[in-house]
Amino acid sequence: MVDQPLFVIPLWADLIAVGLGGIQGALFASGFRGQRRLDLLGVAIIGIVMGMGGGLIRDLLLNTTPVTLQSNWYLLTATLAALLGMLLAGLFQRLNAVIVGLDAVVIGLFGAFGTSKALTLGLPLIPAVFVGVCAAVGGGILRDMLMGLPTAIMHVGSLYAVAAGAGCLVLAGAHAFGLNLVVAAIIGVAVTTVIRLLAVIFDISLPEQRALYRRKVAVETSAVPVIRR
Amino acid sequence: MVDQPLFVIPLWADLIAVGLGGIQGALFASGFRGQRRLDLLGVAIIGIVMGMGGGLIRDLLLNTTPVTLQSNWYLLTATLAALLGMLLAGLFQRLNAVIVGLDAVVIGLFGAFGTSKALTLGLPLIPAVFVGVCAAVGGGILRDMLMGLPTAIMHVGSLYAVAAGAGCLVLAGAHAFGLNLVVAAIIGVAVTTVIRLLAVIFDISLPEQRALYRRKVAVETSAVPVIRR
Amino acid sequence: MVDQPLFVIPLWADLIAVGLGGIQGALFASGFRGQRRLDLLGVAIIGIVMGMGGGLIRDLLLNTTPVTLQSNWYLLTATLAALLGMLLAGLFQRLNAVIVGLDAVVIGLFGAFGTSKALTLGLPLIPAVFVGVCAAVGGGILRDMLMGLPTAIMHVGSLYAVAAGAGCLVLAGAHAFGLNLVVAAIIGVAVTTVIRLLAVIFDISLPEQRALYRRKVAVETSAVPVIRR
Repeated sequence: MVDQPLFVIPLWADLIAVGLGGIQGALFASGFRGQRRLDLLGVAIIGIVMGMGGGLIRDLLLNTTPVTLQSNWYLLTATLAALLGMLLAGLFQRLNAVIVGLDAVVIGLFGAFGTSKALTLGLPLIPAVFVGVCAAVGGGILRDMLMGLPTAIMHVGSLYAVAAGAGCLVLAGAHAFGLNLVVAAIIGVAVTTVIRLLAVIFDISLPEQRALYRRKVAVETSAVPVIRR
Repeated sequence: MVDQPLFVIPLWADLIAVGLGGIQGALFASGFRGQRRLDLLGVAIIGIVMGMGGGLIRDLLLNTTPVTLQSNWYLLTATLAALLGMLLAGLFQRLNAVIVGLDAVVIGLFGAFGTSKALTLGLPLIPAVFVGVCAAVGGGILRDMLMGLPTAIMHVGSLYAVAAGAGCLVLAGAHAFGLNLVVAAIIGVAVTTVIRLLAVIFDISLPEQRALYRRKVAVETSAVPVIRR
Repeated sequence: MVDQPLFVIPLWADLIAVGLGGIQGALFASGFRGQRRLDLLGVAIIGIVMGMGGGLIRDLLLNTTPVTLQSNWYLLTATLAALLGMLLAGLFQRLNAVIVGLDAVVIGLFGAFGTSKALTLGLPLIPAVFVGVCAAVGGGILRDMLMGLPTAIMHVGSLYAVAAGAGCLVLAGAHAFGLNLVVAAIIGVAVTTVIRLLAVIFDISLPEQRALYRRKVAVETSAVPVIRR
């Protein structure tokens, strides 16, 4: 239960990422239309999962005390952001771009925070990038598991993990060449965000997405892998 | 790997919660009727998950060594309780009230233990309540994931999380106002149990439950959220 | 973030297990035939999950810093092994025996490493066996969750958990009677591998497997357990 004195992501930066994650989670949850809207509590839970899941997974992998539980602000921010996002969803429901844009920034931030913290704790380059990618995509995986959606590792694989991985790799590489960690982190966030947005704009992810669904249907009907565990 | 000397839930109290959780898990697993009964090992696994899952999740979130793995008694108790529950299930299969009642006490105990331990380790009020809620509902979420049931966050949301959250909040609030932690914990368990039982008795949860199933069916057939991750 | 000086699984032994796990994961992933093949990244992810998941779960349960993230070699080995496995899969796709054999050795190794490390850290016999079983079957459970396959706890229960549990129990028992830990671990790996292979050869697992599918279908259509959480 000892705090890590070596590395402190400024609280305000961390809370911005948590808040954006909470808003993004709420907008996602509000994407279920008609009678299928979640209730207030459901939206708050998805907001908390999206806002705090990445940080929790990062700290579990690093075996450090979860920062997000050391202060009241994280849960308050994630919850309030989720409720705000739910209200905004009524107004902006058709502004897909808002969700996609927020999402791109959020995975960039979580990836950069994860990789930075891992590097500061002395992890080698490759595991540091891995921790960053897990922090970036972990919240979404957790959300899908809790909501009973197909856990989207293939989407993640073709889109999120690549964008997050590229940003984290640039961050860790720049840091290895002596660049200041804060500057490297800003570059990393930008790389992830731009790749993710370009992927969406130019529809790079769609072929994999279709392939996934064909695959899943076939698995559920007949195709059993050679060995089942 | 240092034990926390500050806070020790008495072993017997912890084992009672673990045992009740194991029995409850076995009764749940036995709810699959006819040819769909699980085998002995399956029932034992569900019992272990329900009896020890909450404590494991609590200790992971608190970054402390899992207490449930520091003694042979936890696994023995959970397994034996699960086997006992399986035998009792043959007698009490129609006594739904037994399962519901046990369940209400178990989430109360896990919630109170989680919040108490978090407070003793110095967590602020809101994260302490969060840890308690995760400890209370985490075993059930883990069970649903392992059994391939719809992960019931909406049920959790509308029923379990509210009851657990109220009990943990009362506990933490009473402690903040200077009440002895043990007394506060007992009150917290009572609050959670009563709310949960009232919710079941007066059928408060049913509307959400139906809504969930409509929602899930619709999601699986056509409705794709605005953005898929 | 302090390394455990008491117990060090030799890096080469650990990497062999990680590499075999990565190959096995890739062969499994390649078992999806025709258009349903995963892309490169998907195969790499499954390889990483199968190669490193067991070690990560073990270290989370033991509350120690994940060894697999302390060096670049683990992620490199798991990824390269997965890609190698994917290439080999094209050649050996019908050699079911290779996958089954590798799989038996891998669960033996992960189980033995998990139990050994737990014993060295001072855990009692039963929790040490539990940690070993979780390390042995955890990677597969994680893989199923991520791939959206039915989380195979019943397969695990009837087959993997029994084989892994027997090997870990023999290891821990032999160690309790004073046998050298390395010798005990080798015996444990052999016990798990042999039981698992015998189970496959003599088709011991099949009845449960069929029962599981009947059960799942029934659950999804009508049968609701007595209480849903």
